[in-house]
Amino acid sequence: MPTSRLEAFSDGVLAIIITIMVLELKIPHGPTAHDLLAAAPGLLTYLLSFVYIGIYWNNHHHLFQLVSTVNGAVLWANLHLLFWLSLLPFTTAWMDDERLAPLPTAVYGVDLLLCAIAWYVLQQVIFRAEGAGSRLRRVVGTDLKGKLSPLLYVLGIAAAAWQTWISIVLYTVVALAWLVPDRRFERAIAAAADSSDGDGSDR
Amino acid sequence: MPTSRLEAFSDGVLAIIITIMVLELKIPHGPTAHDLLAAAPGLLTYLLSFVYIGIYWNNHHHLFQLVSTVNGAVLWANLHLLFWLSLLPFTTAWMDDERLAPLPTAVYGVDLLLCAIAWYVLQQVIFRAEGAGSRLRRVVGTDLKGKLSPLLYVLGIAAAAWQTWISIVLYTVVALAWLVPDRRFERAIAAAADSSDGDGSDR
Amino acid sequence: MPTSRLEAFSDGVLAIIITIMVLELKIPHGPTAHDLLAAAPGLLTYLLSFVYIGIYWNNHHHLFQLVSTVNGAVLWANLHLLFWLSLLPFTTAWMDDERLAPLPTAVYGVDLLLCAIAWYVLQQVIFRAEGAGSRLRRVVGTDLKGKLSPLLYVLGIAAAAWQTWISIVLYTVVALAWLVPDRRFERAIAAAADSSDGDGSDR
Amino acid sequence: MPTSRLEAFSDGVLAIIITIMVLELKIPHGPTAHDLLAAAPGLLTYLLSFVYIGIYWNNHHHLFQLVSTVNGAVLWANLHLLFWLSLLPFTTAWMDDERLAPLPTAVYGVDLLLCAIAWYVLQQVIFRAEGAGSRLRRVVGTDLKGKLSPLLYVLGIAAAAWQTWISIVLYTVVALAWLVPDRRFERAIAAAADSSDGDGSDR
Repeated sequence: MPTSRLEAFSDGVLAIIITIMVLELKIPHGPTAHDLLAAAPGLLTYLLSFVYIGIYWNNHHHLFQLVSTVNGAVLWANLHLLFWLSLLPFTTAWMDDERLAPLPTAVYGVDLLLCAIAWYVLQQVIFRAEGAGSRLRRVVGTDLKGKLSPLLYVLGIAAAAWQTWISIVLYTVVALAWLVPDRRFERAIAAAADSSDGDGSDR
Repeated sequence: MPTSRLEAFSDGVLAIIITIMVLELKIPHGPTAHDLLAAAPGLLTYLLSFVYIGIYWNNHHHLFQLVSTVNGAVLWANLHLLFWLSLLPFTTAWMDDERLAPLPTAVYGVDLLLCAIAWYVLQQVIFRAEGAGSRLRRVVGTDLKGKLSPLLYVLGIAAAAWQTWISIVLYTVVALAWLVPDRRFERAIAAAADSSDGDGSDR
Repeated sequence: MPTSRLEAFSDGVLAIIITIMVLELKIPHGPTAHDLLAAAPGLLTYLLSFVYIGIYWNNHHHLFQLVSTVNGAVLWANLHLLFWLSLLPFTTAWMDDERLAPLPTAVYGVDLLLCAIAWYVLQQVIFRAEGAGSRLRRVVGTDLKGKLSPLLYVLGIAAAAWQTWISIVLYTVVALAWLVPDRRFERAIAAAADSSDGDGSDR
Repeated sequence: MPTSRLEAFSDGVLAIIITIMVLELKIPHGPTAHDLLAAAPGLLTYLLSFVYIGIYWNNHHHLFQLVSTVNGAVLWANLHLLFWLSLLPFTTAWMDDERLAPLPTAVYGVDLLLCAIAWYVLQQVIFRAEGAGSRLRRVVGTDLKGKLSPLLYVLGIAAAAWQTWISIVLYTVVALAWLVPDRRFERAIAAAADSSDGDGSDR
């Protein structure tokens, strides 16, 4: 099966997740600067979650540039990822409603951790579907950033019991690390376009 | 007419249904583990409905891989299916609000049953549009799973009058049965790709 | 400009309109059959609006099968149509909240009328963009159904001052008239596919 | 990387933004003309925001007709634009809830200003990605309208401290200026289609 509908469906779900979070934003209760300031933490957590969904969409986009066909296992591994991402509006809203209380802040981190694990599983399922000579496996390589992120999430979840602002800093650090452009995929896509034998070159 | 816009529209509707259910999730009323636990049944019914929409999207994806053109009747049979699926956020929310009371749990099952019937009707309308030599009809075959599911839904609906957890178990059993990979379509798609005369091979 | 992005955007907007109406549905206030019955009128007006959006999507799909390129005026005429359609969840919810009171029922009809007018304008803008030899103009022809529908809407709006159930019957009659398959477009698409000179035949 | 998924994702996000604003519309509290009139300002601000999203979609559509490949920087510049656009339902709802109070009306203008800046940044990032001979840069040219709009937004923001209806008039004037068809892109697309060497001609 080609990847087009998986990409279209994922684009749809991610577009909706990134947008409906704005529906959970509390409209300020009055017209003053004080009211707007009271709503500011909600805007900042919205920004953080927006960036996370943006990162996943960006990485998803890059990943499937190098995948040419999918099977049923890949479809479900992708839905599994979308499930944990779809809970982000919920965990963001709870964390925001409780003004960064320990448990909601930890649960937000658990959701990010489960997204990262689901992403890892998705990659592994694609590797297996592609077989031993998987080009994607070579491109992904050791994936240091992918292995360090869960560690930082775990630290952030643990820190929530003590000081929740440390958790938020750690979650933000991971987001910033992923904002730094990752050249692995773009180099691989360019290489595939240069060589005429790549099956990804005709995309 | 080609199937591309029907697929794109269905992808859009299914992506929205699967995602807006999270808007119906009750944010826990406080920051404690007790508050989170009180919200847990809502999360579990969300998971069940998410899996159901995932299954329908997955099957829809597989089905239309083997359909090359559609007519007005297929468009309406597809909209009929989307109508019953679009009520899942509503029936899920009611069942969850009433903490698995008998009637809401039965109505949830009725919605699942109507989705299954709409799926069956969609298949039949496609068979008729494709005519006597329908390749899809051969691929779908006796469709044992498709015929047993409504039976289990009916059992679940009946059980709701007695013990609603039995209904939930039955609805979950059907979902699990559909999660088991179904090789009929993938084999047929692979076969079509191998042979050079199949009209599905150029997708 | 090709029509692909206009179609994709319209599919997205229509998919969202048809799905978010379910968010406006009132969840029954209790677990009894009486509570469900109290929510039934909402379900019926949801069904009516669902069918209307389905009809517009269906007609939009057929229309743009025969359009090969668009200009800025067509984009805005299309957005104009989407605007009035996007108000249907709002007018449906108001009519339902006020249990078919005269004014909300009339306003619902006014919205349907404005959608019909926007549809007519969209067709005219496409005709003009295509020039004198517009194939679409020939296919649309006298468009009796398109001309009678506004009349029935106006009757329905007027009837709302007297008996709102007559309005609902009239709105339903128009919907049923559009559900009857319309062969003009399918014949034209088939004809274009048969002849090798049509520019719509390669879609 | 091709632009197709960036366009599809942006279409999805814009389609959702333009549609969910209707969810923030207050349903009139009663069935009378008086109740409908009380809801009218909400409808007018909805219309203004709908037109703004329509303008951005329209311009986005035109812009990417002339862009053939994107890199990571373009993806993030695009997400940056979508972020500020995604806040429009929030700023619209606040302005409407507070019946055009000074601060909310100014904040609405700030959001429009940030959208305009994000649009400018997106264009610059594309120019840089395309290099010195960027065809798009020549098409965009001096972009008088793009440079005057921020000025009018700033005037509107300042005017909100004094008379908010002046702000609304200024925001509306900018919207109307963008509704006037802009022939730069359509001429360039037509020119690219005429010449056989253009890389945009094969779209």
